[in-house]
Amino acid sequence: MRLALIGAGRIGKVHAQAIDAHPEVTLSAVADFHAPTAEALASQYGTRVLPPDAIFEDGEVDAILIASSTPTHADYLERAARAGKAVLCEKPIALDLARTRDALQVLVAHPVTCALGFNRRHDPQFAALKQSIAEGRIGDLETLSIISRDPAPPPAEYVGASGGLFRDMMIHDFDMARWLLDEPIVHVHAEGSCLIDPSIGEAGDIDTAMVTLVTASGRLCHINNSRRACYGYDQRIEAFGSAGMLQAQNETETRLRFTGEPGQVEETPKWFFLERYADAYRREISDFVGAWKQQREPLASASDGLEALRLAEAAECSLREGRRIALNDIH
Amino acid sequence: MRLALIGAGRIGKVHAQAIDAHPEVTLSAVADFHAPTAEALASQYGTRVLPPDAIFEDGEVDAILIASSTPTHADYLERAARAGKAVLCEKPIALDLARTRDALQVLVAHPVTCALGFNRRHDPQFAALKQSIAEGRIGDLETLSIISRDPAPPPAEYVGASGGLFRDMMIHDFDMARWLLDEPIVHVHAEGSCLIDPSIGEAGDIDTAMVTLVTASGRLCHINNSRRACYGYDQRIEAFGSAGMLQAQNETETRLRFTGEPGQVEETPKWFFLERYADAYRREISDFVGAWKQQREPLASASDGLEALRLAEAAECSLREGRRIALNDIH
Amino acid sequence: MRLALIGAGRIGKVHAQAIDAHPEVTLSAVADFHAPTAEALASQYGTRVLPPDAIFEDGEVDAILIASSTPTHADYLERAARAGKAVLCEKPIALDLARTRDALQVLVAHPVTCALGFNRRHDPQFAALKQSIAEGRIGDLETLSIISRDPAPPPAEYVGASGGLFRDMMIHDFDMARWLLDEPIVHVHAEGSCLIDPSIGEAGDIDTAMVTLVTASGRLCHINNSRRACYGYDQRIEAFGSAGMLQAQNETETRLRFTGEPGQVEETPKWFFLERYADAYRREISDFVGAWKQQREPLASASDGLEALRLAEAAECSLREGRRIALNDIH
Amino acid sequence: MRLALIGAGRIGKVHAQAIDAHPEVTLSAVADFHAPTAEALASQYGTRVLPPDAIFEDGEVDAILIASSTPTHADYLERAARAGKAVLCEKPIALDLARTRDALQVLVAHPVTCALGFNRRHDPQFAALKQSIAEGRIGDLETLSIISRDPAPPPAEYVGASGGLFRDMMIHDFDMARWLLDEPIVHVHAEGSCLIDPSIGEAGDIDTAMVTLVTASGRLCHINNSRRACYGYDQRIEAFGSAGMLQAQNETETRLRFTGEPGQVEETPKWFFLERYADAYRREISDFVGAWKQQREPLASASDGLEALRLAEAAECSLREGRRIALNDIH
Repeated sequence: MRLALIGAGRIGKVHAQAIDAHPEVTLSAVADFHAPTAEALASQYGTRVLPPDAIFEDGEVDAILIASSTPTHADYLERAARAGKAVLCEKPIALDLARTRDALQVLVAHPVTCALGFNRRHDPQFAALKQSIAEGRIGDLETLSIISRDPAPPPAEYVGASGGLFRDMMIHDFDMARWLLDEPIVHVHAEGSCLIDPSIGEAGDIDTAMVTLVTASGRLCHINNSRRACYGYDQRIEAFGSAGMLQAQNETETRLRFTGEPGQVEETPKWFFLERYADAYRREISDFVGAWKQQREPLASASDGLEALRLAEAAECSLREGRRIALNDIH
Repeated sequence: MRLALIGAGRIGKVHAQAIDAHPEVTLSAVADFHAPTAEALASQYGTRVLPPDAIFEDGEVDAILIASSTPTHADYLERAARAGKAVLCEKPIALDLARTRDALQVLVAHPVTCALGFNRRHDPQFAALKQSIAEGRIGDLETLSIISRDPAPPPAEYVGASGGLFRDMMIHDFDMARWLLDEPIVHVHAEGSCLIDPSIGEAGDIDTAMVTLVTASGRLCHINNSRRACYGYDQRIEAFGSAGMLQAQNETETRLRFTGEPGQVEETPKWFFLERYADAYRREISDFVGAWKQQREPLASASDGLEALRLAEAAECSLREGRRIALNDIH
Repeated sequence: MRLALIGAGRIGKVHAQAIDAHPEVTLSAVADFHAPTAEALASQYGTRVLPPDAIFEDGEVDAILIASSTPTHADYLERAARAGKAVLCEKPIALDLARTRDALQVLVAHPVTCALGFNRRHDPQFAALKQSIAEGRIGDLETLSIISRDPAPPPAEYVGASGGLFRDMMIHDFDMARWLLDEPIVHVHAEGSCLIDPSIGEAGDIDTAMVTLVTASGRLCHINNSRRACYGYDQRIEAFGSAGMLQAQNETETRLRFTGEPGQVEETPKWFFLERYADAYRREISDFVGAWKQQREPLASASDGLEALRLAEAAECSLREGRRIALNDIH
Repeated sequence: MRLALIGAGRIGKVHAQAIDAHPEVTLSAVADFHAPTAEALASQYGTRVLPPDAIFEDGEVDAILIASSTPTHADYLERAARAGKAVLCEKPIALDLARTRDALQVLVAHPVTCALGFNRRHDPQFAALKQSIAEGRIGDLETLSIISRDPAPPPAEYVGASGGLFRDMMIHDFDMARWLLDEPIVHVHAEGSCLIDPSIGEAGDIDTAMVTLVTASGRLCHINNSRRACYGYDQRIEAFGSAGMLQAQNETETRLRFTGEPGQVEETPKWFFLERYADAYRREISDFVGAWKQQREPLASASDGLEALRLAEAAECSLREGRRIALNDIH
């Protein structure tokens, strides 16, 4: 697969590395609105720089990875689909439901392989968790708890443009919840506070949140977010069922244990997503290539992006109005 | 302290053992509506049997431990107070707020040392957690998660008379939440399902619940209850703050680890409250004696019982009405 | 059982507490060469003080617990046997084989219930380990590793009179090894160094040691001793076999885990034997009473003391001569 | 670096993968006595097949990785040195000291960058352990315990040609011991048994061993080997010192934990060296390239191979003669 990358920033670089390591994928071009950024990355991997617009027409491009800024995602996604290119789009497609729905319509009209960048589905640990549940190891799943905390809060200016904690951060947890609960979610209740950085509150956002989801059969799910965990990236999931419990624990760089002055000490969790999800980004590329070759659905699709966004909308509505929201009311 | 015990059932026996082991307390009498039960326990510890009514007038009784059935608690508590006896009352005082408030009024009029049986406050592990938070080990407390799962559901007939999951089971977690959050709770939201035993649902109750509490300053608390954890009594607390996280993990009988066929295996958690909270029951007696001797408040008081019940009422109201409840509206 | 205690020092106090807590045992007298020490302990438990010599003739004494200084053990043991009293003797019977053998001869001539204070056999964790091995959980036992480290070295004057690390400290591990290996030991090799405190070396002893034992069938056992582990009492055993491995891990006061500045931190192990083996001392009394009532062998007998001492002698000889010792050569 | 690979078997394939993943190294040729094996590997990585003999003369080869059968190592190493090629040689250089010394002489006469395949030095976990000790985290190192168990015993025919457990398997642990103890070893004592597979004993070898090393300053080291751990590759190190203890624990594929029927279960350790040391093999290539470019010593050199072999010889002699061996007597 000849894969072109639009967006050579932090997440673009992560993808470039994963593409480079994949035996079946060639990084066929890099594009970025900021030309020097594109040039630096292209030169590192020995590939071409193209203007973003040229990517869609390029004959040597089979597929496009959209890692540019959020407001450009939906347009690029539609252009890729219309050009018949496979597309792996970073989440979110857009920050609002209407724009997201429009993009999905274009995909219906121009069906191409389209994967959405919910990287956590590709994490080996969460994948093993999903599989163990599917194999019945915990019997009937009854409750799910998802803890997701970033090591440090983003700058307030980022927060303002991010769409807010539910759309920007918890969106990953909503997707995990949907994927693991594996049945329709009917109710959403959210509570949130600004406890870490007052400037986040001034920007109209929260930095700490708890959300409860209820499924059609009565399964309950708790999501716990914080914008700052001083000890690193806290990424845990606990699935509880009739025959037991499965916990995906935090990963550490090594398994060294020190016993002495402060106690029995193991390392803090891996610092952030680059470290924690390095494998996931590699597997995401593999899944994308596999879906493209086999003409099958990728593990995370554009409609998964829409559904996660509906949950974020519901949570935001719940927080704003101080009441539980029926997901059916979110269109 | 000459301590008389009313109620010689399961929990009464636990208390009798703790009393017997305490160097400063004598079990001065045992009472139970079912005389043979009282006789068996009294004979085991070489003490007298008295009819329940006689306890309150007995000159050789300094204090009364009420471990009889729930509907008798409030009456006995009031009679003890009027008789000037110190009293340690099993939770709850009553299943409704009005009756509880009446009992508290009697205590105001007849001030005696009165402790409520929130045994978990006396658990060495949770006490250490509380102290670590107070010492600032995690900085400002921001979120709290309390997981509490019983090993097996009670019979449906018990459920019917229990007052429901929130009053009967989660009441302990509400008390833990109040104790650890250490500031007023303003909002309560509850979700609950009947996933384990349909007869519990038929009795009008739930067996699986998630509740969110919000404090005045915006701290968030999650409580997670299940009536059945096939692996034993799941009693964990996670406190998260600006400078770190503290987790009270489950305890096991030994620290043996087997590595072989199914993996690296440690024991399941201690099976139920008798095993898990044996130390807590002993320390509860110590605290009660200490409060009585020093004329100080015990660690858990009658008003703590009232406040925990208000949270249970709020949760039940939230579940019934499908909306978030302001605690101020619960009188 | 009316049990008299000779020796009211540190270990005597531990035993007095365990005796007091046992429902079937009465502390019928306390003796100590230092009368005020005996009086203090006797008064604490409301019992009599007797001169040591009077204990053996006392009609209200069924059994004697010898917790006096090591040089008195053998004499007291013999006098107890001759007086027909059951006896629980702190280890060692004596610091040399000849004196120990003499005492055993007296026990043959005057058979009484005689238990030796190898407290670790009564530790719930090591008992569970022993039972799991016996039940075949690890298949055929092949290798055993015993780690035993004290929190802090004793004063040099203690070391001089102690009989040396092998007789004073590793004696417990030799007993554990015999108990768990459960077949004749044929070879002993020892290495030792003085790395912690030069005054221990000046007193002719070592503070750090590694010993290898080989059994008749070729099982291998490693024992690892240090007189100082800055993090507390390090008491671990690893049993490895054809079907898996069992590890008895260190115990901690609570299961609290802190995650933050220095990492993921659990408590250091319990500080020393009083904390770590509190349960073991209680169970030791129970076993002693049970053996006396049922006229059976206690879990650790005088001949176990002899055999452990032979291993200590062999280790010392190995260290002195820089060669492997056949246990058959130790008489 | 244009690197040619001699030996396309199991370990050769591991190296080929690590070479392919390294941005600064090209796999410039593959050689194997069995031509189809070489062809398969060469075709997988798109490189040339050369006869082994041609490698040394080839102008497009900067360096040679020797992964052929053990008896060929010394010859190839010498030919590489004489041809001025850098060389990374799998351990051992030879199974006897004389042949190894000859090869080292050739390296003195023809100095090229020469690394030896002690892959464990490159393991991130053991490297972090080494660094922590060097930084003084445990104060003065006093004792070291190295546990190394293979998942399954090799076939008896392999054992016969392997040089025996000490040269074939424990050689890695001897190198770890030297590297971590960081001072001269003076004494070696070995015990060994055949407990797993009688055919190993018939081939004159052992399958279970314990070795004790003593350093010049009195540090003690225990090495524990088994040819079969039913639960996978058991690779642990414990370093104990005046200020604490460091333990390198086994690694698992994920950090999933199941709680239910058999207990609290984590995965068994990674199955064997391919899984456990995948990172180490990659870092080994990096170190080799770095040493070659910077004209510095690689992390493990040919003389490290000689010294580890001396320890193996001493252990074998100790086992054969049933006595402790002074390393000075091994020439």
